[in-house]
Amino acid sequence: MAEIEFDPTTHPHRRLNPLTGEHVLVSPHRTKRPWLGQTEPPQPLNLPQYDPKCYLCPGNTRAGGARNEEYTQTMVFENDYAAVLPPPGPAAPQAPHPLLTAEPVQGGCDVLCFHPRHDLTLARLPVTDIERIIDEWGAIYNRRGNQVGIQYVQIFENKGAMMGCSNPHPHGQVWSLSEVPSLPATEIANLKRYALNNAPSSSAPKGPEGKACMLCEYAHFEVGMAESEGRVVVKNNHFVALVPWWAIWPFEIMLLPYARHIPSIADFTPAEKSAFASILSQITKRYDNLFSCSFAYSMGIHQRPVPSKLGDPEDGDVPHLHLHFDPPLLRSASVRKFLVGFELMAEPQRDLTPEQAASRLRGCSEVHYLDATEDVPNAAENPMSKDADPTNS
Amino acid sequence: MAEIEFDPTTHPHRRLNPLTGEHVLVSPHRTKRPWLGQTEPPQPLNLPQYDPKCYLCPGNTRAGGARNEEYTQTMVFENDYAAVLPPPGPAAPQAPHPLLTAEPVQGGCDVLCFHPRHDLTLARLPVTDIERIIDEWGAIYNRRGNQVGIQYVQIFENKGAMMGCSNPHPHGQVWSLSEVPSLPATEIANLKRYALNNAPSSSAPKGPEGKACMLCEYAHFEVGMAESEGRVVVKNNHFVALVPWWAIWPFEIMLLPYARHIPSIADFTPAEKSAFASILSQITKRYDNLFSCSFAYSMGIHQRPVPSKLGDPEDGDVPHLHLHFDPPLLRSASVRKFLVGFELMAEPQRDLTPEQAASRLRGCSEVHYLDATEDVPNAAENPMSKDADPTNS
Ligand SMILES: [Zn+2]
Ligand SMILES: [Zn+2]
Repeated sequence: MAEIEFDPTTHPHRRLNPLTGEHVLVSPHRTKRPWLGQTEPPQPLNLPQYDPKCYLCPGNTRAGGARNEEYTQTMVFENDYAAVLPPPGPAAPQAPHPLLTAEPVQGGCDVLCFHPRHDLTLARLPVTDIERIIDEWGAIYNRRGNQVGIQYVQIFENKGAMMGCSNPHPHGQVWSLSEVPSLPATEIANLKRYALNNAPSSSAPKGPEGKACMLCEYAHFEVGMAESEGRVVVKNNHFVALVPWWAIWPFEIMLLPYARHIPSIADFTPAEKSAFASILSQITKRYDNLFSCSFAYSMGIHQRPVPSKLGDPEDGDVPHLHLHFDPPLLRSASVRKFLVGFELMAEPQRDLTPEQAASRLRGCSEVHYLDATEDVPNAAENPMSKDADPTNS
Repeated sequence: MAEIEFDPTTHPHRRLNPLTGEHVLVSPHRTKRPWLGQTEPPQPLNLPQYDPKCYLCPGNTRAGGARNEEYTQTMVFENDYAAVLPPPGPAAPQAPHPLLTAEPVQGGCDVLCFHPRHDLTLARLPVTDIERIIDEWGAIYNRRGNQVGIQYVQIFENKGAMMGCSNPHPHGQVWSLSEVPSLPATEIANLKRYALNNAPSSSAPKGPEGKACMLCEYAHFEVGMAESEGRVVVKNNHFVALVPWWAIWPFEIMLLPYARHIPSIADFTPAEKSAFASILSQITKRYDNLFSCSFAYSMGIHQRPVPSKLGDPEDGDVPHLHLHFDPPLLRSASVRKFLVGFELMAEPQRDLTPEQAASRLRGCSEVHYLDATEDVPNAAENPMSKDADPTNS
């Protein structure tokens, strides 16, 4: 009996994430099942430019008692309820049993307000304002990453009530820690293993010491594919935003440089910084336009754990800067995906393929739906895209 | 300068999960911060015993068109929209690039209705009815696990609208697959590594071939601790339910045998089956009583991937049966935890320590609040517990 030929849009399969070593189960045949899950209440529209009750608006008082400056661009402050505390920390405890280990962690948690206006988001800020946010990220990364004992700086944004973020004021956080957390530690270990065990391809950029970089190779391959079959959402001369082959969330995006190996945001040339701001604006506009709503997500920057210092090991520059965008929305502004049941107990699972998700995001406009002077087609309203994606029916 | 002595109820620290190799960041000093997160709408009360619109109630028609039997105990059927399909599957595809691998997956997805009554849950079923559910789990595990090509059987329950489960009718699922999923594969690899690299302790039960079993050792240690300092919620002669040292969710529970090494539910003696049914009832009643609500969770059974067969490798019995309960509620029936931001991008984080959570659960009654003839104190209403746990204020 002849074997059936594999069709990624029909046959259940699993894909490997080489950054984590974990799989995702893909069930593309299931995109036609009826929807039985929870819908989310609609998000408030018409937010005020200033909210007297918002603890991030200029001039207001925070829960800890401090008063915000009358800032006009960005504002940084230390979180009044940080998850970690500055050194000195306690001595490492003796484990009551070898299986019950605990290590003290020190550090600090910063909050970065992106803009004084309560009602704006990355998707609606001018690119010059996003460049200013990138400057602030770089400044915090350098300041915190050079503090004694700090081994890791995690920049992230958690946006939307459906992600547990109750304050719509545009802001992100930076947690700086005396240990490298589990996920970036795993990614860095796999990047190092790849550099050791693989010869670089002739055409892709190379990592430090001329060795192969997993993400240089991956981004180079994706950028070279025909757009219609690929996973690229948008790209410019320096960066590509794509739905990775191993994406877990329906409209997950990985944003990374593909033209050269860049370990961190501290290594940007001026042209790269502008290109980065520009593509951040493009991604977030497309996200909002996908379901005509302020699109919820968690975003995190993975890069060199801290800026390079004299005497660092030679493989310190192995990390390849990349951003993860993990958004929960699945098929409208009110239908979300949950990572539960089988996914918590065994392995993440998705129905819509990454290629279908990329196609939907490519179909979205880069004019924000709230700023459009006339009706702008977006994937959710475009009958062409509707036909192409049965989850939308 | 003398170093500060470590205090797990005050000092930020991280704990290692030896089953996954990942850490959780614990921030016990933060349990006093004000609550700013999302609250959940209250869950419906007074469900009917029969709901004509429920696709799991006896005699009703399912979305796929099939009609449910007029069942009086349990009912099993194959999911009309299964995540995987039965063999034959397609041939494995050639990877377009070594970093983009896909493997076809076959299998089947079963639904198990726990009881004909629409309004009941494990917490409100008699223990004899829970024994019948355990029999059904065993039957599916044996039947599916002995099908050609099936390498793994995942039994789980996803309960509550807050977990994305819209149907309150008591039911669970069983997904049977041609591959071992990421999380159980990692756990089994770590259990094997432990057996190879550690000498068994004198007092704990041993795994196969007299080797050390990580979970035999861990459960034995926890059961031996003084209750007031430990993480044990409830135990009987065979099983212990505890908040593991490395718990991620606020009131996460691990349920496992501690008196002997049991690889799977197919290995139960009659006394063990009764004890298992009894402790499942105790745990779920305590959960409901914690915040006087039908407590949402995902539950999964981790065990031998499939029942033992002739010719299996010698280390096939290394898995030690254990159940994970991952509930999202944090401090009331309407305040939940989200795994977002830093936790998605870097490492899970919790404020309440596992020891504080275990103490709260120990304080709950085992008489279900809806069945109580008079006011039964539970941890959420008990002023003693309130003082002991600042997250409750
Ligand atoms: Zn690179
Ligand atoms: Zn064991």
